[in-house]
Amino acid sequence: MSTNPSPRANIKDVAREAGVSPTTVSHALNARGQVDAETRARVEQAALKLGYRPNRNAQRLRTGEAHMIVLLSSMPFAVAGGPSRLGFLMEVAAVAAAAALDRRLALVLAPPMETGRVPMELLDVDGALVIEPSAGDPNLAYLLRRGLPVVAIGKPAEEAADGPAMPPYVDIHSGQTTRLLLEHLHDQGARKVAMILGSAARNSYVEGQVAYQAFAAARGQAPLLSLVDEAEGENGGRQAALALLAAHPDIDAFCVPVDAFASGAVTAVRESGRRIPEDVMVVTRYDGLRARTCVPSLTAVDLHLDEVAQQAIALLFDHLRGDTSRRRVDGPAAQLVPRLSSARRG
Amino acid sequence: MSTNPSPRANIKDVAREAGVSPTTVSHALNARGQVDAETRARVEQAALKLGYRPNRNAQRLRTGEAHMIVLLSSMPFAVAGGPSRLGFLMEVAAVAAAAALDRRLALVLAPPMETGRVPMELLDVDGALVIEPSAGDPNLAYLLRRGLPVVAIGKPAEEAADGPAMPPYVDIHSGQTTRLLLEHLHDQGARKVAMILGSAARNSYVEGQVAYQAFAAARGQAPLLSLVDEAEGENGGRQAALALLAAHPDIDAFCVPVDAFASGAVTAVRESGRRIPEDVMVVTRYDGLRARTCVPSLTAVDLHLDEVAQQAIALLFDHLRGDTSRRRVDGPAAQLVPRLSSARRG
Repeated sequence: MSTNPSPRANIKDVAREAGVSPTTVSHALNARGQVDAETRARVEQAALKLGYRPNRNAQRLRTGEAHMIVLLSSMPFAVAGGPSRLGFLMEVAAVAAAAALDRRLALVLAPPMETGRVPMELLDVDGALVIEPSAGDPNLAYLLRRGLPVVAIGKPAEEAADGPAMPPYVDIHSGQTTRLLLEHLHDQGARKVAMILGSAARNSYVEGQVAYQAFAAARGQAPLLSLVDEAEGENGGRQAALALLAAHPDIDAFCVPVDAFASGAVTAVRESGRRIPEDVMVVTRYDGLRARTCVPSLTAVDLHLDEVAQQAIALLFDHLRGDTSRRRVDGPAAQLVPRLSSARRG
Repeated sequence: MSTNPSPRANIKDVAREAGVSPTTVSHALNARGQVDAETRARVEQAALKLGYRPNRNAQRLRTGEAHMIVLLSSMPFAVAGGPSRLGFLMEVAAVAAAAALDRRLALVLAPPMETGRVPMELLDVDGALVIEPSAGDPNLAYLLRRGLPVVAIGKPAEEAADGPAMPPYVDIHSGQTTRLLLEHLHDQGARKVAMILGSAARNSYVEGQVAYQAFAAARGQAPLLSLVDEAEGENGGRQAALALLAAHPDIDAFCVPVDAFASGAVTAVRESGRRIPEDVMVVTRYDGLRARTCVPSLTAVDLHLDEVAQQAIALLFDHLRGDTSRRRVDGPAAQLVPRLSSARRG
């Protein structure tokens, strides 16, 4: 199943490490047959050292138990936790969990942890959905090393040539979404549009930056772009907006796809003594609680995450069944949700 | 572990049914030893018939794999799905999943399904969190029959004397929360307060009704109470409010704890030609997307669901470890979140 360089340890590896036969390993780990305590301890240590586990997948097949998939966010807690908790990840989770159960898949939720790391090695899952994985995402790397089927929501970041193969994905068209927001700002009369993006190696930022640079070039505007560390959360967006406004006081709009950054940008615009939308417009991407409850409410896009989640589960289900023909699924086009924060001047 | 009447089938039951030894059952189901195809098929049929599964819990203990718990909502899709998807359940889920992972528990999400039924028998879980279980909740009954540790969020509905024992729970004080909302309405000047509750046998409705009747009696007001089938969702709340307003045109406030019903009540008040809050105030319980994005925004209560979720996971963890001493945990007190929908007149 796997062609990656460090496959999961198998029973023979454990037997070799412990200096016993594979049958003894099986008996020791499954509490069957006669295995003395000292041998059992040696086998258990070897299994632990090599990360070996009995093949739960085969057991699930045999007993009719649901296969387990995990839903992971690649976003840090600062952006996807706290006040943004009921965001993109959970909207996908609600739909994906129901769609998964319809296919005899149990969805385990792995939200961003304040401590930072998801203990993946505890989760003996059969496959995974990963939201917008960045380059080098450690959870994604772990899953791919184990040779498990993974589907990304949003195109995964390009890896180095010697990295693991890119997982199949549902394309959520981050470039088009950014163009939609930028052209809306232009249509509403904005003529000096600044952009705030995350600095992580995430495809949506890459596509967003390319779209912004093309937009600025087409309108003869110098690009005003700030890249913010996701770990800075709301305050990162605020600082970036303050710095941009100080350097370019004639900025009349901010396009800030990350909603936590957008909340910070709104604070910054207000702190600088400007009004939204009269002096500066602000738009964001995800149409969640932050966009809707911001004062003024933020123009955003409907990403049709229910359809995206359904597509992702269907794609992962294919790969779990061994049908790996589809590597990319075309997600729905985003639709603008215009709100007060970009209402036309005058 | 279990004292319930129909415990889970064990390996001896399967052996008896198939007419073989327990060792043969074990070998057949675990693809170990020499078992001929005919015997294996007979054992598998017996296991299927009796609903037997190998004790995954022991395997998880042995291999260090995370224990699996499931988070279930007892609410139907009409109330907890669709536009309310990012609601109470998912707010609990986000926090509970992280708290669970901190304790080596993997949280499987079982959201309300449009098809109605969660396929519990596929989920070989070690324990469960159930949100506000109603009397006769089939998922809860299934879990208790299997003798699995279950913790309820919100006091479970009282069962008949011969029903299964009530699971331990985190008390979210539905009576006090209702009093908080009703007294707020009175303080704001409302003098004829109607109440809309769900008709299901759910403890929060029972406590809410008791609190409302005491409130009305203390103020010499005849209770104006409507009970709505949860399956009716938003439109159920709308119809109930329209009927109450038609019968009692001097109603000046609605207390509607279920947010989907509250959205419907807001529509009804407006359809009747009345203004909110000038003519009729509307308040709800859960401070989610519906309350915050309603026009006007709805007064609600902060249930401190992050703390509730933490408490529930800690309690379930105790019961999973065999410490069953705590049957009830005192959840945090709800706090009023006053908004436009109950702004004082004049």
